[in-house]
Amino acid sequence: MFEDNFRKVEPYTPGEQTNDPSVVKINTNECPYPPSPEVEKALKNLDLDKLRLYPQPACNLLVDAIAEVYGLPADQVFVGVGSDDVLSMAFMTFFNSGKPVLFPDITYSFYDVWANLHGVPYKQIPLDKDFNIVKEDYYQENGGIIFPNPNAPTGVLVGLDMIEDILVHNPNRVVIVDEAYIDFGGESALPLIDKYENLLVVQTYSKSRALAGIRIGMAFGSKKLIKYLSDVKFSFNSYTMNTPALVAGAAAIRDKEYFEMTVAKVIKTREWMKEELKKLGFEFRDSMSNFVFATHPKYKAKDILDYLRANKVLVRYFNNPRIDNYLRISVGTDEQANKLIALLKDYIK
Amino acid sequence: MFEDNFRKVEPYTPGEQTNDPSVVKINTNECPYPPSPEVEKALKNLDLDKLRLYPQPACNLLVDAIAEVYGLPADQVFVGVGSDDVLSMAFMTFFNSGKPVLFPDITYSFYDVWANLHGVPYKQIPLDKDFNIVKEDYYQENGGIIFPNPNAPTGVLVGLDMIEDILVHNPNRVVIVDEAYIDFGGESALPLIDKYENLLVVQTYSKSRALAGIRIGMAFGSKKLIKYLSDVKFSFNSYTMNTPALVAGAAAIRDKEYFEMTVAKVIKTREWMKEELKKLGFEFRDSMSNFVFATHPKYKAKDILDYLRANKVLVRYFNNPRIDNYLRISVGTDEQANKLIALLKDYIK
Repeated sequence: MFEDNFRKVEPYTPGEQTNDPSVVKINTNECPYPPSPEVEKALKNLDLDKLRLYPQPACNLLVDAIAEVYGLPADQVFVGVGSDDVLSMAFMTFFNSGKPVLFPDITYSFYDVWANLHGVPYKQIPLDKDFNIVKEDYYQENGGIIFPNPNAPTGVLVGLDMIEDILVHNPNRVVIVDEAYIDFGGESALPLIDKYENLLVVQTYSKSRALAGIRIGMAFGSKKLIKYLSDVKFSFNSYTMNTPALVAGAAAIRDKEYFEMTVAKVIKTREWMKEELKKLGFEFRDSMSNFVFATHPKYKAKDILDYLRANKVLVRYFNNPRIDNYLRISVGTDEQANKLIALLKDYIK
Repeated sequence: MFEDNFRKVEPYTPGEQTNDPSVVKINTNECPYPPSPEVEKALKNLDLDKLRLYPQPACNLLVDAIAEVYGLPADQVFVGVGSDDVLSMAFMTFFNSGKPVLFPDITYSFYDVWANLHGVPYKQIPLDKDFNIVKEDYYQENGGIIFPNPNAPTGVLVGLDMIEDILVHNPNRVVIVDEAYIDFGGESALPLIDKYENLLVVQTYSKSRALAGIRIGMAFGSKKLIKYLSDVKFSFNSYTMNTPALVAGAAAIRDKEYFEMTVAKVIKTREWMKEELKKLGFEFRDSMSNFVFATHPKYKAKDILDYLRANKVLVRYFNNPRIDNYLRISVGTDEQANKLIALLKDYIK
């Protein structure tokens, strides 16, 4: 058979997307608010005739805007097609020692996928029973370290002191902190990149910047790390970010006021949601992200999932060891959170 | 040193991009005309609030439009971030036999890059002295075959009879025909995909569709090939095409009239340019693409390149064996072609 030598894989099933406006979609951690009005202006002002030309290969328009807002030189900033693209490229660039890369057993579901994709051996380190990262587990010999902060899908945040401890114990390995959810109350490791040449901090436009539909992720690090990452990117694909993404991304990052307002609203709704979930008997770690990862001692997560879906509320369920009785519930608008809590009140008598 | 285990590469240098409108930019084979006015309408009508949501993972909006225009079922169409993304994915999916993949020695410069990237062995088959593909060279044992038609940067077109001969001799291998330039006068192998289950035809929006800045490539093939390709894509990155790309791409492909008009204009200018270049003593194969790949028996290509650049005309030069006395000149507008020819008349006395 001619397909004997095809690559055969299990395709990943992303969280359901829907166009039905009557559905409360709190299953993929998107921002419940639209992007900054500056994005609209920037896209309306885009010279469409220019779309006939290749986009800027080095993405200067976007990189310079991000660098300016974060107070960094442009050569400490790297951008890609969502943080998935950035992280996959980082695996390819930095994890070639042949020794296993370490990451938590419960974490973002693509780490093992990219490790397999790029032939990187890995070792999954169990979180403790309360879903904490145990820093000493990362002091063993390894080929690199990656974890999200806050962790996904648990929402558990670690402090910079723990991150520094891990960095200090791994001076010869690249440590990647995946900060997809850091803007919702955590402290970013960004200020550490000038102190630790081996630290790569990755962020995304898909959550706090309300632009999941435009696909932008970014990495911050020492000039050395960013140079290696850029070289690998340029070696096999010159133009991945399209012109609308460059323009929209530059406009969004510059609108700090809108960003802070949006994030504050999400945090306020989350705190209310946490109180209400607690009253209903749900248990969860204190989330510093835009979702709550909750379990109920008396009701099965899978049953709650089905009940909510039947009532047009989508939340996320992972049928994986240790977390198969949990639901990951994104923080939506107040109205969405109200509907969720009202439905749960009906269910949990 | 901690960078001992970093991937070290030679970054590719893409053709120069410039924002200087006084420069005649005929160096990267972009379309000299703006995209269809339907693209402008579609982007203006895009609901920007929706950008907070992840884009459609299966890109249905775009895939369905392409399928409709090409008269194919949607499950015979695959899309990616430019044909570079599609081709790299195809290397990863189809070329895993451990036997060498065959492609011409003079061809698109990324084939060997992707082969190296994905650990695919390869063998470069010399074109004959007139830059022709010799079909019998592709009847040897191999792990797959890929070539552009017309070839790049030579511009030489082969007929479907030759493609069928290569397919017939390789029933157990995937044969990829990279048709980036097919719309400028060649005959597409698309009608063959239902006859040969092992044929993958790849096209792009970057040339004839005037949307290099939006990054869309597509592949057509049997349901089997498209299924394998899609599974690999979904296994490690769910969302690569952003929402503006889906919307713009769907609008552009549906505007057949504008497309045909644009392509006809490019062909007309090319034919005039060929005559003028011939009068000046340039030699080249009859190009069926949107560029002419020319050499001059009395003047060095590198010198002409420098002279044109000094006069604000950018063309492309490859310092590679066998072609280091050639220039690849994109077909621009009549005005751009006039400027080029006038400058060359001054240079070549």
